Amino acid sequence: MSYERDNIRRLSAYTPGEQPKAADIIKLNTNENPYPPVKSIMDALSSIQGEHLRKYPPATAIEFREATAKVHSVQPDQVIATNGSDELLRLAITCYCEPNSDSKKKGALGLTDPTYSLYNVLADIHDALIVSIDLDDQYQMPTDLAEQWNRAGCTLAMIVNPHAPSGRVYEIDQLKMIATAFNGILIIDEAYADFADFNALDLVRENSGLNNVLISRTFSKGYSLAGLRFGYGIAPASIIDTLNKAKDSYNTDFISQKLATAAILAHDDVAKTWDLVKSERSRVENKLIGMGYHVFPSQTNFLLAIPPKDAPQAEAIYRQLAEQHIYIRHFSMANMRDKIRISIGTPEQNDTLLQAMKELK
Amino acid sequence: MSYERDNIRRLSAYTPGEQPKAADIIKLNTNENPYPPVKSIMDALSSIQGEHLRKYPPATAIEFREATAKVHSVQPDQVIATNGSDELLRLAITCYCEPNSDSKKKGALGLTDPTYSLYNVLADIHDALIVSIDLDDQYQMPTDLAEQWNRAGCTLAMIVNPHAPSGRVYEIDQLKMIATAFNGILIIDEAYADFADFNALDLVRENSGLNNVLISRTFSKGYSLAGLRFGYGIAPASIIDTLNKAKDSYNTDFISQKLATAAILAHDDVAKTWDLVKSERSRVENKLIGMGYHVFPSQTNFLLAIPPKDAPQAEAIYRQLAEQHIYIRHFSMANMRDKIRISIGTPEQNDTLLQAMKELK
Repeated sequence: MSYERDNIRRLSAYTPGEQPKAADIIKLNTNENPYPPVKSIMDALSSIQGEHLRKYPPATAIEFREATAKVHSVQPDQVIATNGSDELLRLAITCYCEPNSDSKKKGALGLTDPTYSLYNVLADIHDALIVSIDLDDQYQMPTDLAEQWNRAGCTLAMIVNPHAPSGRVYEIDQLKMIATAFNGILIIDEAYADFADFNALDLVRENSGLNNVLISRTFSKGYSLAGLRFGYGIAPASIIDTLNKAKDSYNTDFISQKLATAAILAHDDVAKTWDLVKSERSRVENKLIGMGYHVFPSQTNFLLAIPPKDAPQAEAIYRQLAEQHIYIRHFSMANMRDKIRISIGTPEQNDTLLQAMKELK
Repeated sequence: MSYERDNIRRLSAYTPGEQPKAADIIKLNTNENPYPPVKSIMDALSSIQGEHLRKYPPATAIEFREATAKVHSVQPDQVIATNGSDELLRLAITCYCEPNSDSKKKGALGLTDPTYSLYNVLADIHDALIVSIDLDDQYQMPTDLAEQWNRAGCTLAMIVNPHAPSGRVYEIDQLKMIATAFNGILIIDEAYADFADFNALDLVRENSGLNNVLISRTFSKGYSLAGLRFGYGIAPASIIDTLNKAKDSYNTDFISQKLATAAILAHDDVAKTWDLVKSERSRVENKLIGMGYHVFPSQTNFLLAIPPKDAPQAEAIYRQLAEQHIYIRHFSMANMRDKIRISIGTPEQNDTLLQAMKELK
């Protein structure tokens, strides 16, 4: 006899990219920053004492929120700290989507297809109805996206910008039009914004004219802290208040609060690694184009590419590279399986990758 | 216009104990271990390098699970690591309780009253029906507890053992009878088991004759790691498999996995602090009894006590002590407001508390 809910029984869990253990691998499959965390972050780690660990941490990460509010020119009550941005996304679904919503008129989750695949998993765990609207072959959104979501009863929607898995960016004006037309909370997931030319922070400021945008950020990509599990949301205080009701009491630990605070304050220093990544992104893109690949323009730290007709196809490339301990990403969904996704590494890693790609059989 | 679910709008969030900031306070309000984390835990912290933080952590904390399985004589697939035991409790509700369950015949959450107050909050976030069965004035459970839960359609139930907020312990035979009679998953929350004379681990072993018990553990109390946010569950593999489907992909970070592994391996060393706490618990209990208090027998690191008739009453005691920077806990619920709860501190802290209690006005 099993007692779990029907939707949990049916669930296929999210498949994260491989984390191979061998020491000599080149890992370009999960979009980590190839450069190590900056010194001030490691100094913050060295400063942790036993007494900090013995006691419960600050429940709402006030020091982090104050520092982050200052950096982004918002108020501390517009910021929530979370156990990775995964938790932020889950909290939003918990608060704004109705479980069993296939039987209701309100409370569905609006997505695009393709998008970050975790969104679907989180909705399925909650048993929320997913309303997934197709992007075109350049990953552009339809002009009536918000209206389609409205008609289907969505009260929450998620757009990842820059877009994953394509890397393309949507203009802020386009996002603002969608937020204005949408009858619900719009999450703009800026996991990759550190590598982009602009971000949507203006849409959560008090003078934005909007009150329904929630921006999601993470330290996993730009700040080289994927191992730390720390993300945050920025939104009007009314949205943050709601999310706070649903979070675990002490959702972030003392160490990650300290390191994330050091990280956000080291913003300018960390940005030097983003410039290195962007420069390499441009170089790798040009090399791939030279080899006949179709490469989608990217403002992230990865490139999505379609192999030329005379080369091995996407899954074969993934396999051949993995045999040489070079890991890139291949997705099995129908609209992704002809493509490969490559995280931008150090110049040396990228050279090794490009050389191996020239020698594919 | 607000878009959140009705149950979220109605929610009052869990109130954690105060975490006052002043340096000179005596903090006996949130049941932390008064002794610092042992040396091998701090050594594990010193060993963390930037490269560990740059990459995603092991998704299911395999090293921790292997170490813990060995210590508890179970299999690694019987263990799940979580972001504090709060996450474990939430995952169980997500998987086994139906949202909107007031309109259904199955999927309610079975509790006792009183119990750890977070359980009610987590159920309200999920919008699960709570079936709360009264304990008697010695915090004993009714003999037909499981039958009452069954009749009310509970598919998940939670017992904290040793019990909070009383500190009393339930015998394993009694828990086994409840698990046998209950038609659902029974969580035994052993947050305080490190300070007790026995635990319920036998009930999750393969030869137990049971397949519906999930034990919850935390490093926040016994291991002096409340700031780390790390807990775990032990259960038959079928229950762990279900919980794994609902957890965030990377729910625990690299640092906490390393420190928790060091902690569980330092079990015997840490146990010396538990002996000190137990010895002080006995001393403080006797002193309070000598001062006319009714003290409930405790196998935790706290004491629940009712002041004598000629002393100030519970809330006044709490306030007077707080003015002297000594923090104990007072709950406002009707069945708790005549009592105070005191975490056991170091001998010096306990002496200061007892002296202050003698001088109450």
